[in-house]
Amino acid sequence: MPYRAPVSDYEFLLRHVVGFDQVAATDRFSEASADMVSAILTEAGKMSEEVMAPLQRDGDLHPAWLENGVLRTSPGYSAGWKAIAEGGWIGMSGNPEYGGMGLPMTLATSVNEMMAAACLSLQLAPLMSQGQIEALDHHASDELKDLYLPKLISGEWAGTMNLTEPQAGSDVGALSSKAEANGDGTYAVTGQKIFISWGDNDFTENVCHLVLARLPDGVPGTKGISLFLVPKRLPDENGNAGVANSLKVVSLEHKMGLHGSPTCVMQYDGATGWLVGKEHGGMAAMFTMMNNARLGVGGQGVGQAEGAYQQALSYALERKQGNTPGGTIIDHADVRRMLTTMKADLFAARAIMLACAVAIDMQTATNDADWAARAALLTPIAKAFGTDVGIAVAETGVQVHGGMGFIEETGAAQFSRDVRVTAIYEGTNGIQAMDLVARKMMDGGDAALRLLDEIEGDAERARASNPAMAEAVWQATESLRESTEWMLAQGDMNDRFAGAVPYLRAFARVLGAHFHLAAAQSDKGGARERLARFYITRMLPEHASLLAQAQCGAEGLFALSADDLAA
Amino acid sequence: MPYRAPVSDYEFLLRHVVGFDQVAATDRFSEASADMVSAILTEAGKMSEEVMAPLQRDGDLHPAWLENGVLRTSPGYSAGWKAIAEGGWIGMSGNPEYGGMGLPMTLATSVNEMMAAACLSLQLAPLMSQGQIEALDHHASDELKDLYLPKLISGEWAGTMNLTEPQAGSDVGALSSKAEANGDGTYAVTGQKIFISWGDNDFTENVCHLVLARLPDGVPGTKGISLFLVPKRLPDENGNAGVANSLKVVSLEHKMGLHGSPTCVMQYDGATGWLVGKEHGGMAAMFTMMNNARLGVGGQGVGQAEGAYQQALSYALERKQGNTPGGTIIDHADVRRMLTTMKADLFAARAIMLACAVAIDMQTATNDADWAARAALLTPIAKAFGTDVGIAVAETGVQVHGGMGFIEETGAAQFSRDVRVTAIYEGTNGIQAMDLVARKMMDGGDAALRLLDEIEGDAERARASNPAMAEAVWQATESLRESTEWMLAQGDMNDRFAGAVPYLRAFARVLGAHFHLAAAQSDKGGARERLARFYITRMLPEHASLLAQAQCGAEGLFALSADDLAA
Repeated sequence: MPYRAPVSDYEFLLRHVVGFDQVAATDRFSEASADMVSAILTEAGKMSEEVMAPLQRDGDLHPAWLENGVLRTSPGYSAGWKAIAEGGWIGMSGNPEYGGMGLPMTLATSVNEMMAAACLSLQLAPLMSQGQIEALDHHASDELKDLYLPKLISGEWAGTMNLTEPQAGSDVGALSSKAEANGDGTYAVTGQKIFISWGDNDFTENVCHLVLARLPDGVPGTKGISLFLVPKRLPDENGNAGVANSLKVVSLEHKMGLHGSPTCVMQYDGATGWLVGKEHGGMAAMFTMMNNARLGVGGQGVGQAEGAYQQALSYALERKQGNTPGGTIIDHADVRRMLTTMKADLFAARAIMLACAVAIDMQTATNDADWAARAALLTPIAKAFGTDVGIAVAETGVQVHGGMGFIEETGAAQFSRDVRVTAIYEGTNGIQAMDLVARKMMDGGDAALRLLDEIEGDAERARASNPAMAEAVWQATESLRESTEWMLAQGDMNDRFAGAVPYLRAFARVLGAHFHLAAAQSDKGGARERLARFYITRMLPEHASLLAQAQCGAEGLFALSADDLAA
Repeated sequence: MPYRAPVSDYEFLLRHVVGFDQVAATDRFSEASADMVSAILTEAGKMSEEVMAPLQRDGDLHPAWLENGVLRTSPGYSAGWKAIAEGGWIGMSGNPEYGGMGLPMTLATSVNEMMAAACLSLQLAPLMSQGQIEALDHHASDELKDLYLPKLISGEWAGTMNLTEPQAGSDVGALSSKAEANGDGTYAVTGQKIFISWGDNDFTENVCHLVLARLPDGVPGTKGISLFLVPKRLPDENGNAGVANSLKVVSLEHKMGLHGSPTCVMQYDGATGWLVGKEHGGMAAMFTMMNNARLGVGGQGVGQAEGAYQQALSYALERKQGNTPGGTIIDHADVRRMLTTMKADLFAARAIMLACAVAIDMQTATNDADWAARAALLTPIAKAFGTDVGIAVAETGVQVHGGMGFIEETGAAQFSRDVRVTAIYEGTNGIQAMDLVARKMMDGGDAALRLLDEIEGDAERARASNPAMAEAVWQATESLRESTEWMLAQGDMNDRFAGAVPYLRAFARVLGAHFHLAAAQSDKGGARERLARFYITRMLPEHASLLAQAQCGAEGLFALSADDLAA
């Protein structure tokens, strides 16, 4: 079943649900008219359908491999990358000074989601470049920007992120990679990095690594870390890729999925690098890149959910079973339940993702601190819920296929294997939840409570036309408010962390209901109103048990010792 | 991390939670003393640890394959099968007249669970034989029993189940395989069957297929289906495997997991078979086999949950990350939450599985209709919840491993890929749920409501020592009773089916709480009481949102048409 880009869904969401009109009304993004949005989405959708979707299974069957130390990519991926680059999709939201389109993140996020739906393992390559482009644009010197940004934006060169080290894992501050000044303005970077997505390829002239390392006078922990740009090939006097740098791909991981994306162990042996941002200021620069990437990974989850949903729906519409006259398995109540649940969750996750992107655009356009706080608040929710939905929808997609779901040829299993990593990389979903209840509540809960006020206000206004749904959304929001206040009252962070994951999920459930209600208001008597009713009646109630768990605190959790768990 | 058989967990559950003393008190199973139970579990555990666990990864890396039409199994599987056979584990609950041990199903289920934890793909082979042994014992002629049962029980020969056909899927009644009398008491069986687990092997002299097919005068649907025993090699005059029958393995499936288990497309071309049971009475015989297999598949889920839990726990206990002095990631609240959730769910699923087995044993020993109804009621719950827990625990196990979870070498991903099929085969979990709310409530809900009475009675008795937990269990049971009565009141089966899956899950949540409370009562101040409190406080509340969904009916579900879903 070929992938169909859900262009009209984006258009509906932008217009009626996530308030994109505010973005288009700013000077910064005044070009983003409805016609332009439609043209961009249609064009990117076409490329995703025609160029990328056919590569999805090839990448799974023919993973990237190392041939005498040279990385070879899956068949067709080189042409796929070129199509993405030539469409301008890598530099969509990039700075026009360097060849970018300067479009809103909301549009870039939509396009990224379509590419991720069509071929996740290839889409990860431009996503990594986009993060690097944004980090350099915000933190690099003009010299570095002039040299690197045009080539990254055009796709002549590609970018990667190098954070993880074997002993450090999620504790980035424990890294041991080192950098020393060479005396000529460059640095010698030495160390080993693991889990480097697209650490190399055979279709760009150069691969540019952003590497976290510690200078000799760097203090232990995150405050002693600096960020370096370390290219595979050193630029020559004309700024072209020249001689090889002292770095290499040591090996590739053998993964559960995402086979088309090479996951590299990278070795740096005194490789020449350039400082990005200030000495010991690497984490700030890295966070720019990570926040971008976190929303992007949330979008990967949403995209995979769309792909898996389309495939399962297509199967259910076509699969005749036994003697049911004329019917297919979509007429079974439980198959219908699965598909409708998938669609309702997909809508919720996509709306949250786009609302986060809108907040980022408003922050960019207005420099307003409230929008910045809104973007920061929604990022971990968009990442964790988007990927959780991706995994759940892909899983359910397998189930809709019955026995055929377990057979690789159908492709249903591949969605499930590929999307699984999205809940792990760019900060596990547990880390996203901890970020939500700790760092994102350092404002005393202002950003969260302000959002809940808005949701309740919208629910109040919806009472006239949709009283039952409005009341359910209002009540659930009140419960979330109480839970938020409980979180804020906990001085011991472990009491928050013990319930962070269910709290985040409940927050997403309420946000999803809010956006479904908005959709219902704009589609009276239509399918979107019926889908909203399904979600609010059947799926929103989950928030109550999640919030019960969120407020249990750490005591009962740690009452079971490690010995108890092992007994 | 090597697998350790949880022998003491079984002993605790049998003694304090699921009432195995009733089984041991019957004449039929009077040999099952505590010492004997302990000896059996210890011996089977040792075999699982030492022989089977080392094969788990080999089977994944080196799947069974067809070599010029001859099926070759994964390295070591032949020796593994012999160890299982020689231990007597295939015929544990088999009729002693034919060489079986005649032990309670409760013990066989425990042993099967250990074998499934250690190496799921190999364990599936004896599980298939066990189903065939039981079906033949109940339905075959004495001649067939005398010839086949000793060899199946000893493991000289193996057995399979042949239900599924490409066009029929879950609708068994739509099958098109045919059988015609040969005039000599045998039948010629012709047709194609798919998804035949262990349809062949290279370590038994013969493979015996139970095949569903329709006689010329068989009416359409399930009432016209007969069951035939069709061996790969026809028995010679001495009852040994003789000349080849007219059947073959056409191809093997390429699956997401369970690579060590060959999943065959089987072709029968006028193959010689013998009728099992009455003409057109095939479904009754098949149900004997399927009910056995459904509990067994539930046990596969529980076993895989145990294996995945042990591996994740071991990783969390050993994995140091960054600068945490002395600590490992098990000290993180969210890692602790994941592991404790896994353990609590595993306990619940295992208790439900064993309670179902106890009911089967009591039915066997007493012929009491109430026990038969209890076994019938619990079977779909044990199957669906056991496998759902297997999948969820394996998934969470991947997450506990962080980035390493996505790397195949750790084995965490294999649990997740292997166990996935258990929610699909032997009747999808959706079909189990439909069975629960339809067929298993044809008694007007007597069996279900009687069980709820017992749970409430136990909760009442627990109030004195555990008032808060007892109240929570009592209240949840009341909610489940209301929901059960709602189900019973629905005349249109689609209204039941629309909420069948959440209803089954809520039922399992309540049963799990009931068994956790029993464990708490027997372990005052101990780790099992703390685990019960965790489950009842944090996980039981889920029943409320599940029951809300269970009682929504079909109207809102079918309000979204197939066109709406595709829009």
